[in-house]
Amino acid sequence: MGNCCESASNFFGPQKNTNVRVSLPAVCFVWQIAMIVLFGVFIRYDEESDAHWVELKKTENLTDLQNEFYFRYPSFQDVHVMIFVGFGFLMTFLKRYSFSAVGFNFLIAAFGLQWALLMQGWFHHFDYSTGKIYIGIESLINADFCCAASLIAYGAILGKVSPVQLMVVTLFGVTLFAVEEYIILDLLHCRDSGGAMVIHCFGGYYGLAISWVLYRPNLHRSKRLNGSVYHSDLFAMIGTLFLWMFWPSFNSAIANHGDGQHRTAMNTYIALASSVLTTVALSSMSKKEGKLDMVHIQNATLAGGVAMGTAAEFMITPYGSLIVGFCIGIISTFGYLYVTPFLEKRLKLQDTCGIHNLHAVPGMLGGFIGAIVAATASESVYSKQGLIDTFGFTGKYENRSPGTQGGFQAAGVCVAMAFGLVGGAIVGFILKFPIWGDAADDYCFDDEAYWELPEEEETIPPVLEYNNHMTQHKHQETPETSFSVVES
Amino acid sequence: MGNCCESASNFFGPQKNTNVRVSLPAVCFVWQIAMIVLFGVFIRYDEESDAHWVELKKTENLTDLQNEFYFRYPSFQDVHVMIFVGFGFLMTFLKRYSFSAVGFNFLIAAFGLQWALLMQGWFHHFDYSTGKIYIGIESLINADFCCAASLIAYGAILGKVSPVQLMVVTLFGVTLFAVEEYIILDLLHCRDSGGAMVIHCFGGYYGLAISWVLYRPNLHRSKRLNGSVYHSDLFAMIGTLFLWMFWPSFNSAIANHGDGQHRTAMNTYIALASSVLTTVALSSMSKKEGKLDMVHIQNATLAGGVAMGTAAEFMITPYGSLIVGFCIGIISTFGYLYVTPFLEKRLKLQDTCGIHNLHAVPGMLGGFIGAIVAATASESVYSKQGLIDTFGFTGKYENRSPGTQGGFQAAGVCVAMAFGLVGGAIVGFILKFPIWGDAADDYCFDDEAYWELPEEEETIPPVLEYNNHMTQHKHQETPETSFSVVES
Amino acid sequence: MGNCCESASNFFGPQKNTNVRVSLPAVCFVWQIAMIVLFGVFIRYDEESDAHWVELKKTENLTDLQNEFYFRYPSFQDVHVMIFVGFGFLMTFLKRYSFSAVGFNFLIAAFGLQWALLMQGWFHHFDYSTGKIYIGIESLINADFCCAASLIAYGAILGKVSPVQLMVVTLFGVTLFAVEEYIILDLLHCRDSGGAMVIHCFGGYYGLAISWVLYRPNLHRSKRLNGSVYHSDLFAMIGTLFLWMFWPSFNSAIANHGDGQHRTAMNTYIALASSVLTTVALSSMSKKEGKLDMVHIQNATLAGGVAMGTAAEFMITPYGSLIVGFCIGIISTFGYLYVTPFLEKRLKLQDTCGIHNLHAVPGMLGGFIGAIVAATASESVYSKQGLIDTFGFTGKYENRSPGTQGGFQAAGVCVAMAFGLVGGAIVGFILKFPIWGDAADDYCFDDEAYWELPEEEETIPPVLEYNNHMTQHKHQETPETSFSVVES
Repeated sequence: MGNCCESASNFFGPQKNTNVRVSLPAVCFVWQIAMIVLFGVFIRYDEESDAHWVELKKTENLTDLQNEFYFRYPSFQDVHVMIFVGFGFLMTFLKRYSFSAVGFNFLIAAFGLQWALLMQGWFHHFDYSTGKIYIGIESLINADFCCAASLIAYGAILGKVSPVQLMVVTLFGVTLFAVEEYIILDLLHCRDSGGAMVIHCFGGYYGLAISWVLYRPNLHRSKRLNGSVYHSDLFAMIGTLFLWMFWPSFNSAIANHGDGQHRTAMNTYIALASSVLTTVALSSMSKKEGKLDMVHIQNATLAGGVAMGTAAEFMITPYGSLIVGFCIGIISTFGYLYVTPFLEKRLKLQDTCGIHNLHAVPGMLGGFIGAIVAATASESVYSKQGLIDTFGFTGKYENRSPGTQGGFQAAGVCVAMAFGLVGGAIVGFILKFPIWGDAADDYCFDDEAYWELPEEEETIPPVLEYNNHMTQHKHQETPETSFSVVES
Repeated sequence: MGNCCESASNFFGPQKNTNVRVSLPAVCFVWQIAMIVLFGVFIRYDEESDAHWVELKKTENLTDLQNEFYFRYPSFQDVHVMIFVGFGFLMTFLKRYSFSAVGFNFLIAAFGLQWALLMQGWFHHFDYSTGKIYIGIESLINADFCCAASLIAYGAILGKVSPVQLMVVTLFGVTLFAVEEYIILDLLHCRDSGGAMVIHCFGGYYGLAISWVLYRPNLHRSKRLNGSVYHSDLFAMIGTLFLWMFWPSFNSAIANHGDGQHRTAMNTYIALASSVLTTVALSSMSKKEGKLDMVHIQNATLAGGVAMGTAAEFMITPYGSLIVGFCIGIISTFGYLYVTPFLEKRLKLQDTCGIHNLHAVPGMLGGFIGAIVAATASESVYSKQGLIDTFGFTGKYENRSPGTQGGFQAAGVCVAMAFGLVGGAIVGFILKFPIWGDAADDYCFDDEAYWELPEEEETIPPVLEYNNHMTQHKHQETPETSFSVVES
Repeated sequence: MGNCCESASNFFGPQKNTNVRVSLPAVCFVWQIAMIVLFGVFIRYDEESDAHWVELKKTENLTDLQNEFYFRYPSFQDVHVMIFVGFGFLMTFLKRYSFSAVGFNFLIAAFGLQWALLMQGWFHHFDYSTGKIYIGIESLINADFCCAASLIAYGAILGKVSPVQLMVVTLFGVTLFAVEEYIILDLLHCRDSGGAMVIHCFGGYYGLAISWVLYRPNLHRSKRLNGSVYHSDLFAMIGTLFLWMFWPSFNSAIANHGDGQHRTAMNTYIALASSVLTTVALSSMSKKEGKLDMVHIQNATLAGGVAMGTAAEFMITPYGSLIVGFCIGIISTFGYLYVTPFLEKRLKLQDTCGIHNLHAVPGMLGGFIGAIVAATASESVYSKQGLIDTFGFTGKYENRSPGTQGGFQAAGVCVAMAFGLVGGAIVGFILKFPIWGDAADDYCFDDEAYWELPEEEETIPPVLEYNNHMTQHKHQETPETSFSVVES
């Protein structure tokens, strides 16, 4: 076997070194210790998760039910499922990369959420008087959201990078996210409850830029593994369905209490239903005999949730949601059919999961849809107080008009794209250093590089043979020999 | 290959045309556009999801927590999981029909819920003064419920129909559902929070009637595919478990606030536990050496949830719930053992998933159990106000006695059955037209007809061979030739 | 085939009788009937799930939202998923024991929760004036918790026992649990919201003691089946992820309303993230070329949740949680690498799933961590009322100091261990009687013993061949013969 490998490397040139035995543990340990130190210095419970809550409750005459926990926790758990099972299993579609899909997704999300609690804390919840960040249930949701952008980026480079590179992608991804989110939500005062701009648009272009820099001209050498098998497609459907079902929770998790969460969930639910039908229609139209393509069903059906990420919180109306889902299902499926191959061939952009069609473009369009819906908002539709609450026209934004808000929302999309493209390009160049343990072009999309794989399924011998074989071993020729005798 | 197919069709007679390249996109596009138009004309946010809620809140002195969203949303998400993952994966047990099981389930539920929002809206939430339907979170739950009936029907015809036929089944299924539900819940004023009558009994008999009309005398020609493999049975267990776990949410999702939801969830939980034990007992008794049959575990364990669909909201007592689960576990397993084979052989009724035993009969019995429990209700058990609230003895039903209520409940079961059987027969005849793209008897239970399937799992070559093979191709004979040399 | 089996049993000595056709149905039926009788005598709805709630509401001026249901139900559903999907699928990693893993987990949890409602009811909720147990949503959560201990024990003996033995393990496991829980929570007045002591420590040692008594010196004869295949590892990841994601709900499900639930969920979330990184680090360090081992990822990542089972409710601080997760990830992975092999070789303790490293040790350590955190509690950190509420320093415990509380917490750990070890040893001896239908050493880890298995996946013939074969059968020689002709 050693001999075989040697001849292979002679033939193809030296195989890259995928040994991460030093780098992966080092990164995990050092960064985790850094997290502990930084948490120790900065992070504390907020007043609703601190044991002092009982005093606050008495002072402000609250009941336990008014603890933010009860408004947010069910949605948080749905979001949590999307991050770990949804994104993780969606990427298991490759025939021999499912361990890495679900395992590395698990690793980088677990790191990313810690770093996100810090980064988002410094930008949004830092108390200058005490020098601390105070976290509660909403921080956990936001941390999960923040990871999502890096997990989206993982989709573009799936199968082509090492876990150490993914940790780097996540470190920078979360950092960039926190900055662009601060600019978009705080400085521009945009609304983006489901993160069409800050999560999907940013995450999508971030991943595409990284992948573009890491272009592998000889990736076709791994072509045999860059596809699905029957069961791996079914595993991926677990991811698809949990994403699809819980997307209403994703978009509404940090929306305004009351009608805000209520409406956001409904709009998302409706738009998602619509994009399923147009995805199926276009997928069927595009193939011989109208056969459906699992790639489309697994991905484009979700585009409705992305595209509603900004507008779902607004009064877009139920039929408006249907129209968004209708169009985005077509656009996304079209992307899988024609744009992804075009990007790979012409722009030298290899996008394993097609995040261009599921996140980048729907996120960008979702941002602009949000801008349009915001710009057309009126007091008659929202009520005077409703308009103020929905768009946060209070304090120094008291006099902002819906039209102006629309303009700022559109500007937000551009910020998200710019951060994604520029940040991704820089991170991509960092990842080009030949120190990260990524696989050679012939060995991409293969769990073998980073996982101890179990034996093959075919090798389960029936009990009798196995034991007979073991016993008779001493007395007989080896099976191989006896077989060759028969053949000759 | 083309040659092979040709000879096959010569041998068996012409293969049916399963090309849905025109019909499936046409149905999806046209119906989706119709939905957009109808939503535009009719559907609006209700007052709790509209931005005007903030004004209502002030007027009526409410807090955000009293928004219906917080009473219903966690249960809604559980129901949503049951519809898409539960029903979808439960049907993946067939060895080569898992894509269709989970994919078409996805398609028709996504269409059905839109149509349900309209149909149920017209019957239940239509405001004659404005000509609009106002929807909120409870509408979404009801829409999911409404789809469930059509998904149940899919179970009976799984593997034998085209996606276009399934869309037709859903269109009529949702329509019939809305009418029978209106008759049962509004005109007869029955209580049926978990839908034993309106969902399971109706859906079960609807599917059976369709399947009866679509009887295929030569279905045995697909027999090789009408069974499970090890992994497909495990995928089906994902569906089973999510249905089983979330059934308490299903039954309680639209039950009365407070003790109503609380009691309904508990009763369902208890009954389900009981039916697991009797299912295992009967399954083990029925087989050589006491081996268990996965079909029973996947299905009959759920019958306790169905059978409690009506009565769970009432004061049936915890031990009453146990008794219901005990009996229905036995009845359902017995059905899988003896009734389904009998139906197929004697009544020419092919029921792929055995919905007769999981939905039709348990739903019918659940309706009658509800009638009995309602008839025996008393003020001492419920309290005066409790009796009024539980059965809705207000307004024009103020003077209805529990006994009368029991009679109406029993009548409701009959209405559900009648709608299912007659409606299903009519829809079945519509589906017999030879225009829908269903597969010939030899090609049933095969994803090949409607899906682009990935290559087989066995064909993952080791990297070395594959690349060597590619390189040496030019210099050598083809492997096939060299092999034949050895053989001769 | 009969012939083959016969020769096998001659060769290896008589195969054990795994026929459970009498014993399994008998146990299920009799115990289920006993449950019905006992529920009939003892169990009633509590005041929040009884229809009289409407009167209570009026008397005490409550709103529906204050019904315990709305505080607990979302967490309950998460716990429910952990018990049935989490534990069930986590154990599917064996290549040919997935049916038993998920199926018997289902069976014994469904029985266990009924028995737990009774046992815990008698100890905690028995009303001496009426002679009844009153149950509500919190009882359901506790019943699920109580099952968890027996499911943990199943992990140690997975593949080596019959379903009848598992029912016995559960019967005694639930009984012992209720007693030790009563001692720990009521007599010692410990806090243990996530059950590090009462669930994990007890359940872990209970399973280990049983497995120790049932030691099989010739278990290596089943070695061929005691391992995973690619897809079975992926199914197990479904279990892992649902456990990991919902562990914050597990620990917080019965924590105090308000800040208690809020803080518990946050601490658990943070600790779990940390243990993922150290698990990956240690797993990678331990293998050639830094490859990861799925066994570690599937299990040790969860240890953070176990270790926070007691302390998560306290003011352990976010960085304290990180430190716990950091250390326990290392300890648990170390256990899988070195302790489990050591236990098997030196202590003759066969622990299929390695519950020693995931439950027993982390649970024990979690208990002591809780003791330390409790002992160091102070009014300045908790506030005066917060300290009273968190530790329940009311009534006869009014004067207990945090230091004393820490001592009692530590005593609780010892009680849990003692109950687990002694109880497990006794149950193990009961299970040694040769009447329970467990498999011989050569046939362990094999679903074949207790399940009707579907045909193999390889045997799906293409449609043409199959049908041709059937038709031409009469006219031709059998394929086998014709093949041998070619060969000769």
